[in-house]
Amino acid sequence: MKYVIGIDIGGTTVKMGLFQEDGVLIEKSAHHTDREGGPRAVFENITVHLADLFVRNRISLEECIGVGVGVPGPVMDETFTSVVVNLGWENVDVGKELNRKFGLPVKVANDANIAALGEMWQGAGAKYDSLVLITLGTGIGGGVVYKGEIVSGAHGVGGEIGHMPILEQPEERTCGCGKNYCIELVASATGIKERAAKRLRDLDIPSALRNYNNTFDARAVFKLAEKGDEIAKQIVYETGFYLGKGCAIISSIINPEVFVIGGGVSNAGETLLEPIRTNYQKFCFGPAIDTPIIKAMLGNDAGIYGAARLMLTGGE
Amino acid sequence: MKYVIGIDIGGTTVKMGLFQEDGVLIEKSAHHTDREGGPRAVFENITVHLADLFVRNRISLEECIGVGVGVPGPVMDETFTSVVVNLGWENVDVGKELNRKFGLPVKVANDANIAALGEMWQGAGAKYDSLVLITLGTGIGGGVVYKGEIVSGAHGVGGEIGHMPILEQPEERTCGCGKNYCIELVASATGIKERAAKRLRDLDIPSALRNYNNTFDARAVFKLAEKGDEIAKQIVYETGFYLGKGCAIISSIINPEVFVIGGGVSNAGETLLEPIRTNYQKFCFGPAIDTPIIKAMLGNDAGIYGAARLMLTGGE
Repeated sequence: MKYVIGIDIGGTTVKMGLFQEDGVLIEKSAHHTDREGGPRAVFENITVHLADLFVRNRISLEECIGVGVGVPGPVMDETFTSVVVNLGWENVDVGKELNRKFGLPVKVANDANIAALGEMWQGAGAKYDSLVLITLGTGIGGGVVYKGEIVSGAHGVGGEIGHMPILEQPEERTCGCGKNYCIELVASATGIKERAAKRLRDLDIPSALRNYNNTFDARAVFKLAEKGDEIAKQIVYETGFYLGKGCAIISSIINPEVFVIGGGVSNAGETLLEPIRTNYQKFCFGPAIDTPIIKAMLGNDAGIYGAARLMLTGGE
Repeated sequence: MKYVIGIDIGGTTVKMGLFQEDGVLIEKSAHHTDREGGPRAVFENITVHLADLFVRNRISLEECIGVGVGVPGPVMDETFTSVVVNLGWENVDVGKELNRKFGLPVKVANDANIAALGEMWQGAGAKYDSLVLITLGTGIGGGVVYKGEIVSGAHGVGGEIGHMPILEQPEERTCGCGKNYCIELVASATGIKERAAKRLRDLDIPSALRNYNNTFDARAVFKLAEKGDEIAKQIVYETGFYLGKGCAIISSIINPEVFVIGGGVSNAGETLLEPIRTNYQKFCFGPAIDTPIIKAMLGNDAGIYGAARLMLTGGE
C-alpha cells in the first residue's frame, strides 16, 4: 500500500491528512498558519509536520506518492499562485517550493476547487462525475468539477461562484473583489446578516432579531425563520432566491449532475436547501430541472480529501 | 489521406461538408430539410447525398473515418437526442440510425456545441483551448468547449447560454423554453427588435425607427445606432449590457480563454462588441477582465467544421 498527503493551506490553519492510496484517511491534523512569516515560514512548518507524520506512521518517502495542496487563491499550471489575498502572498510557486523541501511530487490547486474534488471523491458527490460545490461562509467559495476534472479556467478563476455578478442593482457594500454585483454580497453569512439588519431598519414589523441589538449572525436568522419570524423568513427565502437562480444560471452553462452546498451556512439544512430548490426549479431550463441540490458531507475536511485526490489523479 | 464528413442538421437545411483529415474542406453543400417526412426522410436524404458525395469525389467508404453530426437539440452519449423542438423529433438515436444507413462510425452533438468546436478548430478560437460561443440569431444558441472538449452536461444542456435566467424582472414575452427570465428574450435578434418596439411606444422622442412602421429588424437598430439615433443607441447599449454581464457571469464559473460572438446579429461587428466588452469589464471578476470577446469567423459553416472535428477527436 502506498500513501498520499493532502494539505489545505488556509488563512488561520494549515490542515494535513495522510491517506492510503485507496482513499482511507489514516490521520489528520491542523496547525496554525504563520502569516507573519510568509510563504517561507508556512512551507517550513509544513515540512516539519510532514517529517513528523512520516516518522510516527513509519512511512518512508518512497512509500509516498506525493503531496496535493490547496491554497486560497487562483492557481496556474498546478503549481503557481499569483496572489493569495488572505495570506498576503504574491507570485509564489507553491509546487516548486514544497517539492524542494522534501523531494516529493507536488500538485497545487485552489482550495475551493479541491474541496469540490474532495466532496466528489468521498463526500456528497461520490455518486457523480460532474459537480458544482458552493461554500457559504463569511464569503462564498466554489468549485466546478466536470468529468472528474477541476475546471480551473484560463486565469485560475473557474468556480469563483461567489463573484457571479447576478445582482441587478449594485449593493452599497463592496465585495472583496472590488465589485458590487457579486452573489457573495447577499448570500454569504455576511450577506445574510447584512440584509437582515437592513430589513429590520426598513420595515416596522416585530421580529425577535431586534432583541439581538444587531449582534445576530446568519445562524440566528435561520433559527428564527424556522420559528416563523416574518423578517427572518423573508431573508431566508431571498437567500434561496439568489442561490437557486444562481444554480439555474450555472446549469444553463455547464449543466452539472449535482449541486453541493457547503460551508457553515449549509448547517441550516433543509431550511436553506428547500427555498434554493424551489427557486432553482422556477428559473431552470427544463431538461436540468431535476438536478439534485444537496448538502456537503465532509465539512472542513473536504480540502484535505480533495488535495489528496488531486495528487492521485491530477484532478482528473 | 483519409476523409471525414461533417453534417449540420438544421430546421430548414441540412449542411454537409467533406473534409480531409487534416482539416481542409474539399466540398460543401446544403439541402432542404424534409421536416414533414420526419427523421426517416432526413436520414434517407442524407444517405443519398452522401453516396453522391463519395462517388463524385471518388472516395471509398474505407477512406472515410466517419461522420460527425450536429442536431438542434440536446444530445446524450454522442448518439441520442431526446427532443428536437425545431424538427418535431422525439427520442431519435441519430447515431444508430445513420450508422445503419452506411456503416460508418457516427458521432452526434448539439448543433450549437459543434459550432463552438468548429470555431475553435479553424475559426475565431483557433488559438485557444477553451471557448464559449454565443450565437445571436432569432434565438440565442451557445456552446462551451473546455480544454478542447464540448461541455454537453448531465442532461445535454451545457452551453444553453440563451436560457441563462439573468433577468431580474420577468419579460412579458415567454421564451420558447417556457420561462420568462432568459437572456434570449432580450439579446437575440427578436429580443432586440421587441425591446426597440417597446421603447418607441414608451418614449416620446424622435427616432428614425418610427419610419419603419414596426417592420424593422435588429440590423436596422444597429445601423441607426451608428448614425446616432437615440433610441437605437439605447437598445444597442443595453444589448451590450445583457451580453457583457452574461459573459462576466460565465467567466466566474468556467473562466474561458475567449468569448466568440456569432450569428446574424454579430454582423454588427464593433457596434455590438464594444458595449459587450465595456459591460463585461464592469461586471467581471478581476483576474478574467482581459478575456477577449471577438467575432465568430466561420458563419454558417461552423457546424460542418465542428461536426467533422467531433468525428475526428470525439470533441476532445
